[in-house]
Amino acid sequence: MKIEVFFSPAGVDELSMRGRNVVIIDVLRATSTICTALRNGAREIIPTADIENATKIAANLSGASRLLGGERQGKKIDGFDLGNSPSEYAPERVSGKTIIFTTTNGAGAIYKCRYASTALIGSFLNMSAIVNAIVEIGGTWTILCSGRQGAFSVEDATCAGMIISQVQALTDVDTEDAGLTAVILYKNYKRSILGMMKKSMHGKYLMSIGFGDDLALCSSVDSVPVVPAVNGVEVKLRQPATETASKPEQPS
Amino acid sequence: MKIEVFFSPAGVDELSMRGRNVVIIDVLRATSTICTALRNGAREIIPTADIENATKIAANLSGASRLLGGERQGKKIDGFDLGNSPSEYAPERVSGKTIIFTTTNGAGAIYKCRYASTALIGSFLNMSAIVNAIVEIGGTWTILCSGRQGAFSVEDATCAGMIISQVQALTDVDTEDAGLTAVILYKNYKRSILGMMKKSMHGKYLMSIGFGDDLALCSSVDSVPVVPAVNGVEVKLRQPATETASKPEQPS
Repeated sequence: MKIEVFFSPAGVDELSMRGRNVVIIDVLRATSTICTALRNGAREIIPTADIENATKIAANLSGASRLLGGERQGKKIDGFDLGNSPSEYAPERVSGKTIIFTTTNGAGAIYKCRYASTALIGSFLNMSAIVNAIVEIGGTWTILCSGRQGAFSVEDATCAGMIISQVQALTDVDTEDAGLTAVILYKNYKRSILGMMKKSMHGKYLMSIGFGDDLALCSSVDSVPVVPAVNGVEVKLRQPATETASKPEQPS
Repeated sequence: MKIEVFFSPAGVDELSMRGRNVVIIDVLRATSTICTALRNGAREIIPTADIENATKIAANLSGASRLLGGERQGKKIDGFDLGNSPSEYAPERVSGKTIIFTTTNGAGAIYKCRYASTALIGSFLNMSAIVNAIVEIGGTWTILCSGRQGAFSVEDATCAGMIISQVQALTDVDTEDAGLTAVILYKNYKRSILGMMKKSMHGKYLMSIGFGDDLALCSSVDSVPVVPAVNGVEVKLRQPATETASKPEQPS
């Protein structure tokens, strides 16, 4: 199996991701929040890169069935129902709802993967579930780290390294410079994922604006064992392969 | 002292580098070759991102005083005098010459730094010389890795980590996610810089096209103790601060 890693979405666009098998990571906090929301019964997440588009989509949906979620500078957007903390996406709040979701890094990275062959949502919370899905689907994979404003983020790269490391425990993996580096990072930090987050630029920023508890939530490996997948414009829990596979063609 | 690292020039442009103190790194091979050429008596290097521009600049210079150097796909460009191997830039070939230089990654990254406050050329070959210059000049620094076609390269990131590590031995350094990661990489590979290069994507490619010897040349720490600096369009050996400093203004 071949896995390559992009440390940020700079230079990545819809066309370069078309036809790939991709895992998108934004550990702090978009992909951790999406896992939590879907596990807690949200019907679907609709990620979008900008606020204007999010409010337009919301205007076309019944007020009772949808919620607006996301952040700018880490904080809830004015007029939105929810911010970007997994703790806000409790069952009583999100069950049965469509969540239109816009964040600074992760939502835009997910949106760029809408023409991918497979696009899954990864985080520490659903580590083993993602690793098993990668091995089950097989082929060549790209791990797209959302990074921070187009630049590198250590928490996403460490998560990518943990995914590769765990896939390597199950099958042979061929990777490249960024993948090798991600694995070295993970081996360096694996005894304290939370400690790594506390040293990271975005972790420090979240602590400074009162979201320090989210670091513990987002570093809890395998606490939310779901596999969210991008289906066109929405993100839903992945269906088992037997339900989504197309029927074999009849011989003519 | 504050040092930040960019793992690739994707998203970097002339304006974002304006006014900064920058070290540009392209270990395999552009910045290693520039150090070697200037140590061997080349008058100056004029880096440019494309072949067309390189030949235009050459047409305006006397044929006896200039050489065209560089690569595409690692190989010498048709009609050029020199490729991108440090071994080609021997004293008898380059002494006294102006070298117009175009390469896939490094030359373009250097060109983007022409409005920087200070822009120095770094590699393993001139490690201590660059570290001493950074500490002497002080302030805030950016290390710009040239990477590989806009993406991450492990040899440039490891070199950035070695620079930070050596500056840290002399003074306090405040860095961020990419800088922390570069230092972890360097600590992982410091016992065998050459071994790291042999595992790198670009190192493997150079070995496959017959430039395996360049990996040993480019991993030889402190073998070429010079400090090349960008001065507008050209790269020359850095002048001591006392010669380049402008005179203090007279009181009016």
